[in-house]
Amino acid sequence: MLIECIPNVSEGRRPETIAALADAVRAVPGVRLLDVSSDASHHRSVLTLAGDAAALERAVLTLVERAIAAIDLRQHRGEHPRLGAVDVVPFVPIEGATMADCVALARKVGAALARRFDLPVYLYEEAASRPERRNLEDIRRGEFEGLAAKMASSAWAPDFGPSHPHPSAGAVVVGARMPLIAYNVNLATDRLDVAKRIAAAIRHSSGGYRFVKAMGVSLADRGVVQVSMNLTNHEKTPIFRVFETVKREAARYGVVVLESEIVGLVPSAALVGAAGFYLQLERFSADQVLENKLRQAQ
Amino acid sequence: MLIECIPNVSEGRRPETIAALADAVRAVPGVRLLDVSSDASHHRSVLTLAGDAAALERAVLTLVERAIAAIDLRQHRGEHPRLGAVDVVPFVPIEGATMADCVALARKVGAALARRFDLPVYLYEEAASRPERRNLEDIRRGEFEGLAAKMASSAWAPDFGPSHPHPSAGAVVVGARMPLIAYNVNLATDRLDVAKRIAAAIRHSSGGYRFVKAMGVSLADRGVVQVSMNLTNHEKTPIFRVFETVKREAARYGVVVLESEIVGLVPSAALVGAAGFYLQLERFSADQVLENKLRQAQ
Repeated sequence: MLIECIPNVSEGRRPETIAALADAVRAVPGVRLLDVSSDASHHRSVLTLAGDAAALERAVLTLVERAIAAIDLRQHRGEHPRLGAVDVVPFVPIEGATMADCVALARKVGAALARRFDLPVYLYEEAASRPERRNLEDIRRGEFEGLAAKMASSAWAPDFGPSHPHPSAGAVVVGARMPLIAYNVNLATDRLDVAKRIAAAIRHSSGGYRFVKAMGVSLADRGVVQVSMNLTNHEKTPIFRVFETVKREAARYGVVVLESEIVGLVPSAALVGAAGFYLQLERFSADQVLENKLRQAQ
Repeated sequence: MLIECIPNVSEGRRPETIAALADAVRAVPGVRLLDVSSDASHHRSVLTLAGDAAALERAVLTLVERAIAAIDLRQHRGEHPRLGAVDVVPFVPIEGATMADCVALARKVGAALARRFDLPVYLYEEAASRPERRNLEDIRRGEFEGLAAKMASSAWAPDFGPSHPHPSAGAVVVGARMPLIAYNVNLATDRLDVAKRIAAAIRHSSGGYRFVKAMGVSLADRGVVQVSMNLTNHEKTPIFRVFETVKREAARYGVVVLESEIVGLVPSAALVGAAGFYLQLERFSADQVLENKLRQAQ
């Protein structure tokens, strides 16, 4: 069973602290640390771990213990919204694990974090206890600074733990979701309005594809604009369909696609699916990918 | 170090014999048997193995021993040309292994087969000892029935072993090559001449791409025609370029592509490359594929 876990930690500026957190996680038996990405202006780091449920539970408990000792949100100022020292902990099914396995793991880890560290825990996305807690943005609105007031309302009683914030570490949001693909399409124009209109056309919130979040941004240093997206379920809203739609909408404004980019990791299946679409592959199975065969035969 | 080995055995009709050969290979420690495909009309089976050099050497010696005991080419009639009981043994670099590693392995295994079974061995493709032995078709021309006469000429002295055929097992051709992709494009027409002309346009032998072998064939039962190809180096002649060229050449005759198909296994990199081409991916690295990261972190 292989599950991915991508804890977001509110520390992106002290390299030695980030390295110590990464080392602590790497030392947990059965855990593979695939990536660490830090952003100083966001003051945030994203760790990518893989392992089975038991190993990831140990890793998250270790990480939160170290992060609470090292991070004080009362002193933390960054561009990225955050609620906690360890801000978000999503579990993602990769291989031999179902979404139900990840939901169960999120609940188990959430309960353990609350018990061990007296930390309020919210469950989100597939692990959410009620519909209004599915979206991370709704839980995080008001941020650390507004958390005490927010928690005073019974509507925001945590799923586990005390009904007040941890003094220095705030709260943690734990959940289960599909792999998320950070995908951007750069347009050969400096017209920001074009990027914004295309983003509005393709994102779920304004009538577009079910599993797309999108915004138009300007890449001022390059003199071009970007449709910046999160694809939250590449099986149901595939990357190639999103790309083709962006391309077609851009043509409406006389604009062509310059390039696209994937930020961070992408599941092989998303790219194999795109190859299959464009090559018009029939009777093709993921079992025909040599590397998949190799892993199955292990 | 991971090498693929794809022995072609001259037995495609007796399921129990094929299963016994597969079982013998599967029992070799360190070897993974990824696939067994048999074709009764060809009277031939293709095994796909993976492992390190030492494990594959043991597996090939085991397979040849069992095949010599089970197969008599004097009684063998099939559609596919063949020279030996085990006809061809290519080694293919997959991960952490170079082509030079595979050439060295081919020579070592070839020498061992000649010594142990008194079997003539020819080296081909990247392992060939001279240019006129690079192509398997040239070595195999005349087949088992013509082998004794062919070997009487010094030009066809084997690279290892006796200068006469093994009485029942003929000879074996051992070599090293890039992964081969069996790739077909089906056209929405029954005009065989169109498929033949496109095949001629794209194959190396008549002026096309360097690493493409192609022929036009009729799929009579479906009423369509096919450009049937082997892509012998997908890094240098990528699948998407071949597909786009076939599509463009077909348009010249007013014909559209119905679908394409990959027969058997394909390296992930070939499909990721196609996704990158069509999605216009910039700054993308194979390290961003989650499964690659996982294997590296093991």
